[in-house]
Amino acid sequence: MNLRKDADYIITNTIQDNLPDIAVKRAIEEMEIDGNVYLVAIGKAAWHMAKAAKESLVEKIKDGVVITKYNHVKGKLGQIRCFEGGHPIPDENSVKGTREAEKLISALKEEDTVLFLVSGGGSALFEDPEVELEELEHITQQMLACGASIVEMNTIRKRLSKVKGGKFAKMCEPAKVYSIVLSDILGDPLDMIASGPASVDCSTSAQAREIVEKYHISLSEKAKEAIESETPKALSNVATTVSGSVRALCNSAKVFCETLGYEAEILTDALCCEAKDAGSFLASIGKTYESKGKKAFIVGGETIVHLKGNGKGGRNQEFALSAAEGIAGCKNLAVFSVGSDGTDGPTDAAGGYVDGFTCEKLRQKGIEIYQVLENNDAYHALEQVDGLVMTGPTGTNVNDFAVVLIGETV
Amino acid sequence: MNLRKDADYIITNTIQDNLPDIAVKRAIEEMEIDGNVYLVAIGKAAWHMAKAAKESLVEKIKDGVVITKYNHVKGKLGQIRCFEGGHPIPDENSVKGTREAEKLISALKEEDTVLFLVSGGGSALFEDPEVELEELEHITQQMLACGASIVEMNTIRKRLSKVKGGKFAKMCEPAKVYSIVLSDILGDPLDMIASGPASVDCSTSAQAREIVEKYHISLSEKAKEAIESETPKALSNVATTVSGSVRALCNSAKVFCETLGYEAEILTDALCCEAKDAGSFLASIGKTYESKGKKAFIVGGETIVHLKGNGKGGRNQEFALSAAEGIAGCKNLAVFSVGSDGTDGPTDAAGGYVDGFTCEKLRQKGIEIYQVLENNDAYHALEQVDGLVMTGPTGTNVNDFAVVLIGETV
Repeated sequence: MNLRKDADYIITNTIQDNLPDIAVKRAIEEMEIDGNVYLVAIGKAAWHMAKAAKESLVEKIKDGVVITKYNHVKGKLGQIRCFEGGHPIPDENSVKGTREAEKLISALKEEDTVLFLVSGGGSALFEDPEVELEELEHITQQMLACGASIVEMNTIRKRLSKVKGGKFAKMCEPAKVYSIVLSDILGDPLDMIASGPASVDCSTSAQAREIVEKYHISLSEKAKEAIESETPKALSNVATTVSGSVRALCNSAKVFCETLGYEAEILTDALCCEAKDAGSFLASIGKTYESKGKKAFIVGGETIVHLKGNGKGGRNQEFALSAAEGIAGCKNLAVFSVGSDGTDGPTDAAGGYVDGFTCEKLRQKGIEIYQVLENNDAYHALEQVDGLVMTGPTGTNVNDFAVVLIGETV
Repeated sequence: MNLRKDADYIITNTIQDNLPDIAVKRAIEEMEIDGNVYLVAIGKAAWHMAKAAKESLVEKIKDGVVITKYNHVKGKLGQIRCFEGGHPIPDENSVKGTREAEKLISALKEEDTVLFLVSGGGSALFEDPEVELEELEHITQQMLACGASIVEMNTIRKRLSKVKGGKFAKMCEPAKVYSIVLSDILGDPLDMIASGPASVDCSTSAQAREIVEKYHISLSEKAKEAIESETPKALSNVATTVSGSVRALCNSAKVFCETLGYEAEILTDALCCEAKDAGSFLASIGKTYESKGKKAFIVGGETIVHLKGNGKGGRNQEFALSAAEGIAGCKNLAVFSVGSDGTDGPTDAAGGYVDGFTCEKLRQKGIEIYQVLENNDAYHALEQVDGLVMTGPTGTNVNDFAVVLIGETV
């Protein structure tokens, strides 16, 4: 029995199964696309998505714009122009790429189609602000500082943008918009992913005004005006497919657990609590099911980390490391947590793997888990016990998944 | 469909099914007790356990001592003498009762039986220290202040006590000791529950010495001597039954969920993470299974709360309240978390109940959940929305259980 080998098999295949090109090709197969296609791809997976679309649609694509993160363009895509811009803070290059996209779709006809490929990070990368970039950043900083929620942030940002909150799809009229979405937000709220450039906005100007008052955000006259302008409340030219999401990721993990003979159960695809407590929770489940046959429990989502220290790590590494204590001494248990993008926090690891021996191994090296967690330094601890999961950047971004493997009692 | 009614049914019956008298009677039925019985009952449930034993064994009990918390003696028990003492800090009355118990068992014969009934709180209530009570408390305070773990605390306390760490059972020799335990510690570690007066101690004097050095604990000469004295490493006269525990509690909850038609699954009986993250985690599971038929997921254990505010609440109330956000708007979901002792934190509630409407109801009253949690004030928030679970003190203490109910889609 080798739980680590099983874990690696499940991780590799689950990520493989959820790469953007596979997701895009699957979605395109189910669409009926006539006439000329104009491609706009935004987000961290934009280049991969555009490449897959080009391979599927070949000469139907007349023109296209890709806007992705720096160092995420992996080569030329024929006539499709690729731009790299700032993330998580939009910069001049984000705006430049976005304006090219706006120009591209500015004079389309009813028989034309905009193939709009959306992935995480699109909020920053696809931006043409109603105010100066400096003010946009200043407003964002103010909201972050007073603990505004992501919903509140987006309500404001949609109004300060020419393309967010359904405005881009409106601009495409009378052309049709086919939107293929890789969701990086739990529950796949279309108006939130990349701030929903092709999605009807559920928030209102009245709510935006309330948020401005609640947090005492200081705004220029221009920004005040933008806040007052309402977003489109109906879009008749848009069809959307969510082709990649954490749900699909969990389903894949389940299949590959089952391939290895584990009776597998997805507990949730909407996990959003603190990483280290999620690790403890999943470890408790594993411990309860120890010696009850070969089983796997799968959770998906995106946990959070409240930074206290200045160590190196990521939410998946914290998740795994904190599970180590709960399964210490249980020789048939392993827990791993992996970010589908392959880069967990500011590290080169995708996540972490621990088993019943990890705790003891760490102790022998004089490493106490609770101290490591206090300092948010999971990377260095896991590194010492071969507990890092390394996949390299995957090009996808559909949140994280974690598994507790319960091996057969030997 | 009335999820609250279902929750109340499950809570009432689960607790009923795990009351100390039922647990004690079940255990006594399975024991072969000949000769004279001398009863010693310690802990928060001592009086209830002693009463049940008396009802089962009637005239076999020759003499007895009950040592419980103040206001926990509910009446006379014939020849059995009842003492009330300090908890969580032992006081002169704890020591007085303990010495009566020591006297009771000091001259027994081989054919005699000590029926030793153990419940949570026994560490403080059953104490005859090797040092002055003041020093014992001072040492405890030092350890608490430097964040010593409960295992470390007990390693020290066992050595500073005449009865802990198996020493009481040793004292009973040559009489047999039948120990019936209601476990309030996850995993039922017998040497930890009430500091294990009738259980072989796994810790060593060498470890105790290390802990003293690690935390620079200042000790009197007498205490230093006690630390050096080893606890019994073998006990041939003891038989132990764990008759009540969180595992039994979860099993009961499962049965009563099933009685109401829920397909029920126990995920863990060893939960020990932060209460509010456990609530969020369980809510995520509920959300994932919404509209997939009538289901219930059960978790048991004892979560923790890191106090930040000065509000009123308890871990079960925080658990439930933090789940409210995760299931907001889901009309078929409810989450409740209940302490089996009926008193969650320093409140008169046993726990909390929330459903898909709770969040909106709170919002209408101007209450924001995250602010309530910041102030650890779950009681007052739940009180506003009929979210408190009130059972009154139950007389048992076998940790907590929590359930997410997924009702049928209507």
